[in-house]
Amino acid sequence: MKLWTGRLSGEIDHWATQLNNSLWMDQRMAKEDVIGSMAWAKAIFNVGLITKIEFEQIISGLEQINSLFETDTFVFEPSDEDIHTAVERKLTELIGDTAGKLHTGRSRNDQVATDFRLWVKTAIQLLIQWIEDLQHTIIQRAVTDIETIIPGYTHLQQAQPILLSHWWMSHFWSLQRDKTRFLNLLTEVSSMPLGSAALAGTGFPINRHQLAEDLGFSSPAPNSLDSVSDRDFAVEFLFATSLLATHLSRMAEMMILFCTQEFNLITLSDHFSTGSSIMPQKKNPDPLELIRGKSGVLLGKLCGLMTTLKGLPSAYDKDLQEDKQPVFESFDTLEILLKVMNGLLSSLSVNTKRGLELIHPAMMATDLADELVQLGVPFRQAHHAVAGVVKTAELLQLPLDQLPLSEWQKVNPLFEAWVFRILDPGQSIHRHQAWGGTAPKAVQEQIRHARKFLAS
Amino acid sequence: MKLWTGRLSGEIDHWATQLNNSLWMDQRMAKEDVIGSMAWAKAIFNVGLITKIEFEQIISGLEQINSLFETDTFVFEPSDEDIHTAVERKLTELIGDTAGKLHTGRSRNDQVATDFRLWVKTAIQLLIQWIEDLQHTIIQRAVTDIETIIPGYTHLQQAQPILLSHWWMSHFWSLQRDKTRFLNLLTEVSSMPLGSAALAGTGFPINRHQLAEDLGFSSPAPNSLDSVSDRDFAVEFLFATSLLATHLSRMAEMMILFCTQEFNLITLSDHFSTGSSIMPQKKNPDPLELIRGKSGVLLGKLCGLMTTLKGLPSAYDKDLQEDKQPVFESFDTLEILLKVMNGLLSSLSVNTKRGLELIHPAMMATDLADELVQLGVPFRQAHHAVAGVVKTAELLQLPLDQLPLSEWQKVNPLFEAWVFRILDPGQSIHRHQAWGGTAPKAVQEQIRHARKFLAS
Amino acid sequence: MKLWTGRLSGEIDHWATQLNNSLWMDQRMAKEDVIGSMAWAKAIFNVGLITKIEFEQIISGLEQINSLFETDTFVFEPSDEDIHTAVERKLTELIGDTAGKLHTGRSRNDQVATDFRLWVKTAIQLLIQWIEDLQHTIIQRAVTDIETIIPGYTHLQQAQPILLSHWWMSHFWSLQRDKTRFLNLLTEVSSMPLGSAALAGTGFPINRHQLAEDLGFSSPAPNSLDSVSDRDFAVEFLFATSLLATHLSRMAEMMILFCTQEFNLITLSDHFSTGSSIMPQKKNPDPLELIRGKSGVLLGKLCGLMTTLKGLPSAYDKDLQEDKQPVFESFDTLEILLKVMNGLLSSLSVNTKRGLELIHPAMMATDLADELVQLGVPFRQAHHAVAGVVKTAELLQLPLDQLPLSEWQKVNPLFEAWVFRILDPGQSIHRHQAWGGTAPKAVQEQIRHARKFLAS
Amino acid sequence: MKLWTGRLSGEIDHWATQLNNSLWMDQRMAKEDVIGSMAWAKAIFNVGLITKIEFEQIISGLEQINSLFETDTFVFEPSDEDIHTAVERKLTELIGDTAGKLHTGRSRNDQVATDFRLWVKTAIQLLIQWIEDLQHTIIQRAVTDIETIIPGYTHLQQAQPILLSHWWMSHFWSLQRDKTRFLNLLTEVSSMPLGSAALAGTGFPINRHQLAEDLGFSSPAPNSLDSVSDRDFAVEFLFATSLLATHLSRMAEMMILFCTQEFNLITLSDHFSTGSSIMPQKKNPDPLELIRGKSGVLLGKLCGLMTTLKGLPSAYDKDLQEDKQPVFESFDTLEILLKVMNGLLSSLSVNTKRGLELIHPAMMATDLADELVQLGVPFRQAHHAVAGVVKTAELLQLPLDQLPLSEWQKVNPLFEAWVFRILDPGQSIHRHQAWGGTAPKAVQEQIRHARKFLAS
Repeated sequence: MKLWTGRLSGEIDHWATQLNNSLWMDQRMAKEDVIGSMAWAKAIFNVGLITKIEFEQIISGLEQINSLFETDTFVFEPSDEDIHTAVERKLTELIGDTAGKLHTGRSRNDQVATDFRLWVKTAIQLLIQWIEDLQHTIIQRAVTDIETIIPGYTHLQQAQPILLSHWWMSHFWSLQRDKTRFLNLLTEVSSMPLGSAALAGTGFPINRHQLAEDLGFSSPAPNSLDSVSDRDFAVEFLFATSLLATHLSRMAEMMILFCTQEFNLITLSDHFSTGSSIMPQKKNPDPLELIRGKSGVLLGKLCGLMTTLKGLPSAYDKDLQEDKQPVFESFDTLEILLKVMNGLLSSLSVNTKRGLELIHPAMMATDLADELVQLGVPFRQAHHAVAGVVKTAELLQLPLDQLPLSEWQKVNPLFEAWVFRILDPGQSIHRHQAWGGTAPKAVQEQIRHARKFLAS
Repeated sequence: MKLWTGRLSGEIDHWATQLNNSLWMDQRMAKEDVIGSMAWAKAIFNVGLITKIEFEQIISGLEQINSLFETDTFVFEPSDEDIHTAVERKLTELIGDTAGKLHTGRSRNDQVATDFRLWVKTAIQLLIQWIEDLQHTIIQRAVTDIETIIPGYTHLQQAQPILLSHWWMSHFWSLQRDKTRFLNLLTEVSSMPLGSAALAGTGFPINRHQLAEDLGFSSPAPNSLDSVSDRDFAVEFLFATSLLATHLSRMAEMMILFCTQEFNLITLSDHFSTGSSIMPQKKNPDPLELIRGKSGVLLGKLCGLMTTLKGLPSAYDKDLQEDKQPVFESFDTLEILLKVMNGLLSSLSVNTKRGLELIHPAMMATDLADELVQLGVPFRQAHHAVAGVVKTAELLQLPLDQLPLSEWQKVNPLFEAWVFRILDPGQSIHRHQAWGGTAPKAVQEQIRHARKFLAS
Repeated sequence: MKLWTGRLSGEIDHWATQLNNSLWMDQRMAKEDVIGSMAWAKAIFNVGLITKIEFEQIISGLEQINSLFETDTFVFEPSDEDIHTAVERKLTELIGDTAGKLHTGRSRNDQVATDFRLWVKTAIQLLIQWIEDLQHTIIQRAVTDIETIIPGYTHLQQAQPILLSHWWMSHFWSLQRDKTRFLNLLTEVSSMPLGSAALAGTGFPINRHQLAEDLGFSSPAPNSLDSVSDRDFAVEFLFATSLLATHLSRMAEMMILFCTQEFNLITLSDHFSTGSSIMPQKKNPDPLELIRGKSGVLLGKLCGLMTTLKGLPSAYDKDLQEDKQPVFESFDTLEILLKVMNGLLSSLSVNTKRGLELIHPAMMATDLADELVQLGVPFRQAHHAVAGVVKTAELLQLPLDQLPLSEWQKVNPLFEAWVFRILDPGQSIHRHQAWGGTAPKAVQEQIRHARKFLAS
Repeated sequence: MKLWTGRLSGEIDHWATQLNNSLWMDQRMAKEDVIGSMAWAKAIFNVGLITKIEFEQIISGLEQINSLFETDTFVFEPSDEDIHTAVERKLTELIGDTAGKLHTGRSRNDQVATDFRLWVKTAIQLLIQWIEDLQHTIIQRAVTDIETIIPGYTHLQQAQPILLSHWWMSHFWSLQRDKTRFLNLLTEVSSMPLGSAALAGTGFPINRHQLAEDLGFSSPAPNSLDSVSDRDFAVEFLFATSLLATHLSRMAEMMILFCTQEFNLITLSDHFSTGSSIMPQKKNPDPLELIRGKSGVLLGKLCGLMTTLKGLPSAYDKDLQEDKQPVFESFDTLEILLKVMNGLLSSLSVNTKRGLELIHPAMMATDLADELVQLGVPFRQAHHAVAGVVKTAELLQLPLDQLPLSEWQKVNPLFEAWVFRILDPGQSIHRHQAWGGTAPKAVQEQIRHARKFLAS
């Protein structure tokens, strides 16, 4: 069944039908389509376009259809070109001609935009939940690993010692920004298109504020033209998912390094590793690599839809049919990525001693400079003095903690025996107590602060 | 001057220097760098790292530097590799060795992240202002053109008559969403990195909450590792600018069509048109085309930075130096696009009668169906009946308003003389009175509603 | 069955399995996997790793598997994680332990890269065929519409009259470039990875040149490390498909304009149009809009895979599993787009008189200037003179052909009665006879030239 | 000076001028513009549109202009809106009204497309040269490091031993593909737009084949409409540069890992390293990180221009003005990246013994399995047997080479004393002698093969 036969003659071309049909994709919004139609039935009943009896027939028919979807027993016909057509066709089979009254005063343009927003609202709520689940796991790890010291890196070069907990927590905050982004989007998505009809607004005196309330939207969209062709929420969803995936990718990239033989800071559980078809000794961090790989794909979906939107005039065009597939697929991918990252974090083991093994005394160079500063040396000169000592040690092929004090003093006489105390990584960690720093006290404070951002 | 000589030997390679230097770009944050340094001087003074006198020397030196920037008389040296180096080099020239104390407890990593956020905050406020300026102009146009009827399009096919004002206003709301997006970003950008040092947090007991307040941030970032490598705000800025540009592009695309000889609904002012080097009769809408073209370029900047971020591990890496150029360039481009669109809208003339000329009676087909619905015909049948009439008229090569009533009644006997009244575009417009519709009353209500979203 | 059990303990996590499995996608290369395995069996037989009998067993088993795929009766097991595993599992069922000898000296890394290249080779050949089919149709249209004059546009403003045939042919050449691009890619894709094993090359003295010949590759890849992680051909495929789609999109965009009521130059067949669920009079060019919309999506796939590749170190990483889905989907989309465009072009009707109706006399302004040039006026002055006449006509609100000669001569006395002859569009067309121009003679020559580029 | 005054009244708006002017960008094609104009002067002289004397005047004037550009003494006027205007304005100053004859029969549309193609041709030739320079350096490194064994990685896990030379050479081949891509593009770019005028072809009987020969193009473009709006070569340039940058990024990423303290396989020269403003011990691989970062930016440029093109109808539109900036910038960036990578490779030092230190005996697991295969065990079982041994060794916390033979034989009695010989990395390397493998002999053959692809 097509909703628009009547004027055009002849069959649609086979390949054009392939191109045009969206049922395979939009049937995912079956529930939303039924809910939207129920609310619309009430709205047109309220202005007398259908009788009480007709209203009840329609609602009852839609409820039956809903059950069919819920029990996965709805049978689509080859002629159903989209979900709206399928629902109306079935409704006609169930309640007869009255079904033909349901589409009064609305268009598929406002209908699909409404269904899609309802779907996205639910999707956002689920994503927020899964993000929080991962944040909980991160906090758990941070609590567990509070005594593990590892090298902190910049430019992937060893920089200063940090707590592994501090590293875990750094990912809490990028996820927190993602959550905020999704919450902001929830507000944007809460503007209701229904009642905009094809473009000019519905031709009947529908109370759209009431309708919005019935459907759980915060308000009806204020301009019918804009509202049928606005897909900002879809690209914003793709941006938010793509950035979330980028955060997971950056985390995964570092963990892939952490589980190389060379770094060897963590070991993944066998439940999150795979082997090789040719090299019997291999244990590969495939899930982390796929998290990294998928995040590129998700960025592509954002670019794709943005490019499509950018190529349009300001009105409803059929190109907008391309909006749903990237959104659905990004959502599905992220469900997997978030759950895999969660399970993988919970189950990995930390090689607690390896961090200290990796730390070279030179990583305390900043602390040495800071100590000179405490003695009154301007930082710039202190930095220079310590750099000189590092260079000397390198020339003599000695680690800093084996460089005789006399060599230190050649560079700057202010160096005294205290330098060897400063070379202790634990001591270094404790110096960084300001808000947001890596000292145990500061990290514990950070964890307390973080917990406030979790709903449960 | 380099801030890190002391350990490495030899000169940096010529081409590596080309690649590495960022001064040509980051000098744009000169003012922010000075402001950040002033606040930092106060912070280290508060914990006793510098004396009152040193503090005053530093502030006075920085003020002099600020004046040099403001009067455009600061002279950069070839050796200044970035803005931070240039400022510290100059400060040393002005106040001597005390300058070397300013960098105590901070790193260029937190410094540049802070400068950049300060810059973006200002940029957002300016963009919001320019968006509002454009929204004012749109409202003005909507008020002026409230009586002009034009065809409304879907699929670029004539669909239903609308008010030109309604079309103008549709763009008010996409801009409103852009504004909200920038306001949300303002919140995100208000988290202060300063005091995170290179990665592990500052080694001194700086009061970062006070520091944040001094610099106008809402709070200090809660994790030093995250905060030196977080560029979410930069990609979000690029997303917001790219989507804003997409909105301008869609508007421009439609206006380019509106000023073709074929549509001929508007005429651009000569101040916003150009001619041809070969065709003397041409008057081209170049500014609109460039708005459309630039919006593709802006999307590229978003993709570019996202791709760079996605390729990183979770820590500070030098790749992040690529963050500023796309942000600065997107801002500059949008300033031009917003101002051009504003001037162009104010100065164009509307060909008020052309809209009605273009409207075919068949555009009132939905109204005819709606009227049948009022007579009790289910919408689906009403739609079918009207489609039949349209087809008949096409076969007879008659416009609908010249099709004899007898032909109408062959399709459905409910059609009566009222059909000819319904074929009037003005009548059609008035039917769409529900919230958000195109009826004059609804559009006026929409304009009132819109005004509430403007600050001034 | 997993090919790598033996070392790792425990089951893979449910969600990690979801992430990891690629069978749903890579089973599309079933035929290529079997062919590759047959050639490999021959290669290891040639160096004595399997006996003649074992070789024959393996070939016979693989032939049975191939039949199962061809008759769509191969049954996958839940444990088959990818197509390679499925084939080896089945082979074991069919011929027992000998199956376990097939994987000698190869890895899934070189195997999948080989399968994928074989698939892409076939895909390219099909695309080239479909492009040629469309080129044939374009030539047919060009022949049919050789007498139809339409306005040519720049900046979407009427510029100079052209033959519709010339416009059709302009798309022949962009498709020709696409074809060349795919042919170049065919050369690149003809480098064989098989024998590279996991990364270091196969451990056995396989004759890879012979193997390449057997599989129809032009040569074996010269570096095993590069060849298992090289996906240039995949991104180049995505670039070529994306640019081809962009060409179709630009063509579609113009045709969407051509079938607006305002331009009205062409009418789509009902087989390639759709209607509206609310507006009974609508006839929408949905297929053209979807061609336009899909081309954005295809660009996204290119960006996505490029981003994924860019995030990798130079070696095989699991992220590369994301390479196939975008390639398969882009191919499927393009098959539809090319076939729809082909059918749509063949079946549309041209409104042959409309072009001349739309042409304003001012479109001959360049011809007037050219004529003045023939009289010795420097072009720059001639251009200025004609522009003056156009302006005068506009002020007097007269079309150029109704402007009295006296007014022409006020601008430049060289204007004579000949100006009115020059205002004829047909005359204008005939002036453009140089190679590549729009004169009928030149277009016919162009068509002859074009035919040389078609295989059949 | 504007080339199109005459018809439009009034000044162009300040901001529209900002948007419209392209001189700051297109002056980069000054030389190409002059060369193109010289050839055009000859072409119009050949058909009698200018006299011999006028021709000589024009050529002489253009030569003077060329000298001004070459000596950097050409003075632009604020009114020069693009390079074509500037040249014609200056020509008029130099030779008077005859200058106004030069633009006869051409348009800026075909002029700019021709200039741009000329520029790109030169750019491609330079890029090819710089790529070859880098390939030479890679071969040099491969020759130098032919005895250095390092771990080969897949999934960033140690996989099998390889020669460092083999790793270097893997990058030779990706660059070779880049070169081929640029060579193919050189063919595409050799189609000449000049003579297409604005869109319909030139109105004079110019011999475009001769003109193409004069300008070094292979042929004149066969369709004027297509040729003024075809920017395929520009996006293809951006694709080729973006993929080349991706190759450099992947190489850089691995080298960043190789110079971590954990891997420590190579040490960058101080000429290609930088220090830290806060951590005196740091030596950062900034140039490699910037190569990695820039490659994301280049991908953005490709996406940007593709998006702009995709949004156009099939004709010349002003949006195309956005084509040059990304091409120029990508070229400039790649010059730096190629030269930095070249210098960095030549000057780094290899820590020759570190590779063997890193290699665990388990990396020879595949060789053990291959050896069992030689003894008649099917590979699948051999793989399983070795995996069992690896697991045993892990449980006993022994490296494979210290696991007693008895433990081996518990897993499979075929294991004998030979296993310990197989555990030698050097022995492993030598096994991989097939074409493209990592054995010294194969790598030397590979180097010989590679040299054939270098021009000099």
